[in-house]
Amino acid sequence: MKQIQGGVTAPKGFTAGGVRCGVKQSKGEGNQPLLANMSVADYLSGKKDLALILSERECNAAATYTMNRVKAAPLYVTMEHLEDGTAWGIIANSGNANACAPQSHENAEAMCEFAAAATGHKAGDFVVASTGVIGQTLNIAAIEKGVPVLAEQLSSNGSDAAANAIMTTDTEKKEIAVTFTLGGKPVTIGAIAKGSGMIHPNMGTMLCFITTDCAITHELLEQTLHEIVPRTFNRVTVDGDTSTNDMCVILANGMAENPLVEWKDDSYTVFSKALHQVCEHLARCIAGDGEGASRLVTCKVHEARSEESAERLAKAVVGSPLVKAAMFGADANWGRVLCAMGYSKAPFRPEYVDVKFQSDVGEILVCQAGAGVDFDEDYAKSILSQDEVSIDICLHEGNQEATCWGCDLTYDYVKINGDYRT
Amino acid sequence: MKQIQGGVTAPKGFTAGGVRCGVKQSKGEGNQPLLANMSVADYLSGKKDLALILSERECNAAATYTMNRVKAAPLYVTMEHLEDGTAWGIIANSGNANACAPQSHENAEAMCEFAAAATGHKAGDFVVASTGVIGQTLNIAAIEKGVPVLAEQLSSNGSDAAANAIMTTDTEKKEIAVTFTLGGKPVTIGAIAKGSGMIHPNMGTMLCFITTDCAITHELLEQTLHEIVPRTFNRVTVDGDTSTNDMCVILANGMAENPLVEWKDDSYTVFSKALHQVCEHLARCIAGDGEGASRLVTCKVHEARSEESAERLAKAVVGSPLVKAAMFGADANWGRVLCAMGYSKAPFRPEYVDVKFQSDVGEILVCQAGAGVDFDEDYAKSILSQDEVSIDICLHEGNQEATCWGCDLTYDYVKINGDYRT
Repeated sequence: MKQIQGGVTAPKGFTAGGVRCGVKQSKGEGNQPLLANMSVADYLSGKKDLALILSERECNAAATYTMNRVKAAPLYVTMEHLEDGTAWGIIANSGNANACAPQSHENAEAMCEFAAAATGHKAGDFVVASTGVIGQTLNIAAIEKGVPVLAEQLSSNGSDAAANAIMTTDTEKKEIAVTFTLGGKPVTIGAIAKGSGMIHPNMGTMLCFITTDCAITHELLEQTLHEIVPRTFNRVTVDGDTSTNDMCVILANGMAENPLVEWKDDSYTVFSKALHQVCEHLARCIAGDGEGASRLVTCKVHEARSEESAERLAKAVVGSPLVKAAMFGADANWGRVLCAMGYSKAPFRPEYVDVKFQSDVGEILVCQAGAGVDFDEDYAKSILSQDEVSIDICLHEGNQEATCWGCDLTYDYVKINGDYRT
Repeated sequence: MKQIQGGVTAPKGFTAGGVRCGVKQSKGEGNQPLLANMSVADYLSGKKDLALILSERECNAAATYTMNRVKAAPLYVTMEHLEDGTAWGIIANSGNANACAPQSHENAEAMCEFAAAATGHKAGDFVVASTGVIGQTLNIAAIEKGVPVLAEQLSSNGSDAAANAIMTTDTEKKEIAVTFTLGGKPVTIGAIAKGSGMIHPNMGTMLCFITTDCAITHELLEQTLHEIVPRTFNRVTVDGDTSTNDMCVILANGMAENPLVEWKDDSYTVFSKALHQVCEHLARCIAGDGEGASRLVTCKVHEARSEESAERLAKAVVGSPLVKAAMFGADANWGRVLCAMGYSKAPFRPEYVDVKFQSDVGEILVCQAGAGVDFDEDYAKSILSQDEVSIDICLHEGNQEATCWGCDLTYDYVKINGDYRT
C-alpha cells in the first residue's frame, strides 16, 4: 500500500472541482448572490464554497450519517438518493448548513437538480452535503448560478479545489490517497474531509467524501464503511458536540477493473485495510485541526476486557475538558485521566491502571496500579509540549484495545466559539 | 419559610469552625506541616483548609456520593461510618483530595479519629470529606496538629469559617439557612457547599454539608435527600467532569423538638420543600461560580413527555461547550441549542420546538416550531449580557418539565485548568 497525491481524483474516472459562488450572504442583502454579476474569474478567486465530485461511470455508494436526532435536510435527501445503492457524484457547499431553516429540504433537492442539469444526470444520482451556520435560509440562487461554472471546472486535478471548498475554519486542507494491488490491478482510494470548524460558527461538521476505482459490490462497500467509521471518525472528539450535518460517503466506480470484490476474502481484507488507513489518517487530521487546537491528543487503552469498554474509556479521556485543558498546559495531570475514566461508565479496576504520557520525545510513567509514581516533571512537560501527544493506558485485564483522538482545549476554542459576533 | 443567616450553625445544637493547618505541602518538604511551629494565631490567619461541624446530640444522617467509579477514600470511610444511619459531626479538608494516593484510606480514617479524640466521640461518629489535588499523599501530620486547635474554635457562629475552609477556587462562600414551622415548633435547615474549583487544579469537587434540628427518622431523611439531590445538585454541570470526591451529607439532630417526621405527611412535605429550596439555592450558586464562569446559565425544558427526557435535554444544552461558549459571547446562537438537544439521546420532535432566551431584561423568541424566526440581535445580546440568563425550551408534547444549571465557557476556564503550573 502506497500513499500518493491526488485526493478524490486519484482513482480512475473521477473528476472534481470547487468554486466560490457567494453562498454566505450578509444579513439584509436578500436572497441574492453575494456578487451580483460574477465573472468566471470571480468564481475562481477567494474562499471557495461549492464543491462537485463526479464519476465517469455509475458508482456503488455507501454512507454513514450523524447520530444527532436533528438531522440537516441534505442528509435526508442523500439517504433517499442512495436507497438504490448507487450514485454518480457529490455536490456540497460550505457557509450554510441548510438545517432548521425554511425550504431546507427543497433547497437540498435543488442542489442535486442543478448538479444533474450541469452534468447530464438525474438529481437522484447525487449525494448532497452542507456545512456552516444553521437556521438561515440557503442562498440557493447563488448555488444555481455557481453550479454550471463549477461543472466547467471539473478536472482530474480538481481534488484540491474541492477539498478547499468544503473547508470552514479548518486551518488546513484534509486530503489523502492510497494505492494498492488487487488481483494484479492497481486500485486507488482517495478522500477529502473537513473537520470541526465553521465560518460563521454554529457547530462543527465533519464531512468526508471517499472515491475509489475498486470494483466492489454495494453490499460489501457498505459493510466495510460501517465497520471502519465507528473505529476511525467516530473515535474523534473535539468538543463532544455532534453536528446535525456529519456525513461520510464512499463512491466506487469499478474502473480499476480488478476482479469484483464480492466475498469477504483476501481482496476484501486488503481493500478494507486501505480504507481504514484513509479514514484513520483523516480522523487524526480532523482531531489535530479541531477548533483552536494546538496539539493532537491520542488516547490508547489496551489490555482491556472488551474493545467497547476500551473505546468508552479512551473517548472519555480525550473528551474530558479538564484533560484537554491540561494537555493545552502540557501538564502531566494524570489524576484527571483517572477521573475521566471513572465517569465513563465503562467497567475497569482503578487499582490495576497504569498511565503513561508519550510523544516523539519519549515516554514517562506517571501512574502505576492506580496510584501516582514519582516522575520528572520537566521531562513530562517536554513530552507533552509536542504537536502530537499520547495518553497510554494499560488496564491489565484482557487483550482488547481501542484508540481515540482529540485535541487540547485552548483560548482559541473559546474565542472562535464565543467571540465571533463581537 | 424564611431565609436567615447562620448557615450550618443556624439550626439548634450545631457548632462549626475552620482553621488553616497547612495541609497543602510544597513538593520536597516531606510529610510535615507547612509551618513547623504554628501558633494559634497562625491557625486562624490565611486561607483556611480544615473544617469541623459538630452536633450536641447524635444525628440521623444520610448522604449521596459521586457516581464516579473512581471514588476517593473519604467516601468509602463515610459510607462505613453512616451504615448505622447516625453521626455526630463532619470533618473536612481542602487542598488535597486524598484520592489515588498511598495511605488514603488510613488517612481518611485517621481524620475521623482526630476529630473523635478532640470532641470525645468515636471515629465512626464522623463523616469525612476532602477536596483538592488527587494522587498526592495527604499531609496527615498537619491535620493531626490542626484538629485540636480547630475543636477549640467550634462555635455557634462558626459556619462562616467552615464554609471558607472547604472553598478551593470558589470565588465566593456558599452558605444558606431557612426556617419554617413544623407542629408549632420553629425548625431550621442550614448548609454550606463548595463548587467546581480547586487550589491546585485537578478536578472540581462538589461538597455540601447540611444540618437541621428537625426531628425526622433516618429513613425519611435518606428518602428526601435522594429525591432532592437528583433534582438539584445533579442538574448542575460545569464541565461534564464528575469528581471522585463529590458528596452531599445531611445531619438531623432533632433539637427543634417538633413532632417526629415519620410518615410522608404534610410535615414531610414542608420539610422536603425547605430542603429542596436549600439545595436548589446552593446548586445555582455552584453553577454560577463554576470555574472561570462569568454568568449562570439556566435551561428549563417544559411541556415534555417525561421529566427524565426534559432533564436529559436541559442537561445537554447547559453542558454543550458550543452553547457555553456562545453564552460567554452573549450570542443568541439557538442553532447550537437545537443541536445539543439532538445529540442528548432524549426523544423529542424538533419540528415542535420553541426556544426563548430570557433574563431580568426581558425575553426573546428565537426559534419557533424548529425553525429560526427573525429577531432583534441587539435586544437578544442585551438579554444575554446579564449575570443570569435562561434558555427556555418548550417541546409542546406533554406536561413534564426539568431545569438544569450551568455556566458559560470562558478564557478563564482554560487558564485555570491549563496554565496553572506555568
